[in-house]
Amino acid sequence: MGTHKQLTIGLFGFGVVGEGLYKVLQQTPSLNASIKKVCIKNSGKNRNAPAALFTTDKDELLNDRDINVIVEVIDDADAAFEIVTIALKNGKDVVSASKKMIAEHLPALLELQQQTGKSFLYESAACASIPVIRNLEEYYDNDLLHSIKAIVNGSTNFILTKILDEGLDFKQALLLAQQLGFAESNPVLDVEGFDAVNKWTFLLTHAYGIVPSPDSILFNGIQNIHSSDATVAKEKKQEIKLVAQAKKLKDGKVAAFVLPQFVNQDDHLAFVKNEYNGVVIESGFADKQFFYGKGAGSFPTASAVLSDISALRYEYKYEYKKLYHHQPHELSNDIFLKVYVSFDDLTLIPKEKFEWIEEWHAQADRKYLIGVIKLTELKENNWWKENGVSLILLPEPVIEEIETRKLKRRSLELAGIV
Amino acid sequence: MGTHKQLTIGLFGFGVVGEGLYKVLQQTPSLNASIKKVCIKNSGKNRNAPAALFTTDKDELLNDRDINVIVEVIDDADAAFEIVTIALKNGKDVVSASKKMIAEHLPALLELQQQTGKSFLYESAACASIPVIRNLEEYYDNDLLHSIKAIVNGSTNFILTKILDEGLDFKQALLLAQQLGFAESNPVLDVEGFDAVNKWTFLLTHAYGIVPSPDSILFNGIQNIHSSDATVAKEKKQEIKLVAQAKKLKDGKVAAFVLPQFVNQDDHLAFVKNEYNGVVIESGFADKQFFYGKGAGSFPTASAVLSDISALRYEYKYEYKKLYHHQPHELSNDIFLKVYVSFDDLTLIPKEKFEWIEEWHAQADRKYLIGVIKLTELKENNWWKENGVSLILLPEPVIEEIETRKLKRRSLELAGIV
Repeated sequence: MGTHKQLTIGLFGFGVVGEGLYKVLQQTPSLNASIKKVCIKNSGKNRNAPAALFTTDKDELLNDRDINVIVEVIDDADAAFEIVTIALKNGKDVVSASKKMIAEHLPALLELQQQTGKSFLYESAACASIPVIRNLEEYYDNDLLHSIKAIVNGSTNFILTKILDEGLDFKQALLLAQQLGFAESNPVLDVEGFDAVNKWTFLLTHAYGIVPSPDSILFNGIQNIHSSDATVAKEKKQEIKLVAQAKKLKDGKVAAFVLPQFVNQDDHLAFVKNEYNGVVIESGFADKQFFYGKGAGSFPTASAVLSDISALRYEYKYEYKKLYHHQPHELSNDIFLKVYVSFDDLTLIPKEKFEWIEEWHAQADRKYLIGVIKLTELKENNWWKENGVSLILLPEPVIEEIETRKLKRRSLELAGIV
Repeated sequence: MGTHKQLTIGLFGFGVVGEGLYKVLQQTPSLNASIKKVCIKNSGKNRNAPAALFTTDKDELLNDRDINVIVEVIDDADAAFEIVTIALKNGKDVVSASKKMIAEHLPALLELQQQTGKSFLYESAACASIPVIRNLEEYYDNDLLHSIKAIVNGSTNFILTKILDEGLDFKQALLLAQQLGFAESNPVLDVEGFDAVNKWTFLLTHAYGIVPSPDSILFNGIQNIHSSDATVAKEKKQEIKLVAQAKKLKDGKVAAFVLPQFVNQDDHLAFVKNEYNGVVIESGFADKQFFYGKGAGSFPTASAVLSDISALRYEYKYEYKKLYHHQPHELSNDIFLKVYVSFDDLTLIPKEKFEWIEEWHAQADRKYLIGVIKLTELKENNWWKENGVSLILLPEPVIEEIETRKLKRRSLELAGIV
């Protein structure tokens, strides 16, 4: 069935992913892909590969005309961007796993792809072994993608599972995650939602043709989830998940955010436990599709990198169909969200910012309310992230329009607030 | 990002799938695809499209030089094969939804693709909206695909769900499935496993490079599942599913079969209820991947057909990588299976054919045993499909080697049989 491009790879990074990749490519001659040179930062370490393979000079790879593919699996977003830029300009295809770099430089990376015509693939950067980018790009190539909801960060999902299923508190769960290698020693990127929103940035590009900057998206992590929140979830037979989501609105725009959310036990995402990831894609035609698998770790990451390498053999590139061939969608923050907010101190909660408050539980030590609030209020102010306040979305959080403000006043009255 | 092939489509069939496709293509000009002509069997029907679009003469489509894509969504496997053959020979790319036709003619279809160099895509023919073929083809392009297990038939899964979850008996459940449109009025193809094994045939090609004929694969449907089997499943906290599976053996060969199976409640496949389908792919690198979605019906089918059409814009074709670029695997029936067998009449069970029998429940009206038997015994004889005998695999059914036959004699003795 035709001939395939012989791939000669220059690899940046020889950590667990890089080394795993090297081994698999050696064992799989059918892939027609071999690593010619590996660029490492620290030449002093012992490596399980011939010394002649290694260099610390990146130009040895980037200027080698034999090398037609650069694979970068390094941990430094700035260095990664430089490598990718030069590689594409030098006429090489590139496979990358650096979600932070991609999220921060997406407009420039899109331009580089257009200028050079080369492939830039990064399936491993979101949900690792789940082929979510390729499926969004190829499978929902029409105007029927209603919504996408996903658990894209394995560390936080592991921690939430331990809190909800095993009754650990946040600190215990985080410690366990670190012990098992599911969280970094500095876990802020994961725990506070930065990693998730980075991934969501470019998944929105493949889903809807939106190219947002990470800071234009409302997000939070799970750092404020309180054991009393878990108790409430259990009473309601729900789970708490950190959910990245996007939903097409009636006006054709897209609402997108990354926040903790109560999830019903029959929801697909409730099935996603521990360090796993899951993606639920809802389309008008195909109903709900659910993709599930390991979202992080060296092997799942190497697996996705390998699939990208394999795709280069038949010169696959992302077309960014939603961006270039469709009318790209716009992001909208002009919606209301139905939220649960728990807190110790009532004075921390700006009650007047809510459209209305439906429930008010002030008896226990830890208090909570359920109410409706503008997304922009959350985007612009941080009271809901600070001082131990915990905000969790309800299962169907998006309200597009509110018919009358009377409701608001009435519910505040009912709650005895005004 | 470059230009794309303008697709001019000749469509065979204007049932729910064909008509749905026509509407979506009209509403999605960005796809660069339009239907020039539709070939129908019965010109008398009223259609929701201009009369000039229709013809009953297939040559009007097949000989039209403007038409570069043939999409066939008809219900007649023999006619479909003829159409596909001529279309490919006439230099047209083809999208098909006819699983029976593909299963029965796969070797010829492979040859046609090689001869003509044209694309022949059929994602909708297995698991409809779940992109299983494309992911097997593109994502597991290495020697690490350990196993694949799938629920590929929605009708039987719906019936089993009603039997297990709602206590219906087989006939009631089947009737309900028919009333809701999940089963044909003649349900034999679904219920007795023919549809599932047809799909499994070509999924094995994309997974392992095996091109089996449907009758070389051991299979059964769910027609003999007895309400007492559901009771046993409940006692064991298990579900019963019709599972198509393939597993790589230690000798590099692949065991494959389609049989009812007890499934633990924490198994991914237990999540798949009613008319849904699910696929679990286990690979050495990526651990378990789970794909879930609607497996049949007009919209999911049209969704998959649309994705194939969209893929033709960048001249995508299946490479059959496992077949042409790897050492293709061979099918092996040289294994043992751990099975549950229930029956009313002991004399119907050839006990001496079992390697050993582990459990023996002869007290109740409906009796059952659990034992180990050669796959070839089941392949060559039909006692386990007849006279109301019901055979169900245990959760981990494959035994590759048996160390000593002593075990057999001992267990038969224990069971009081010899």
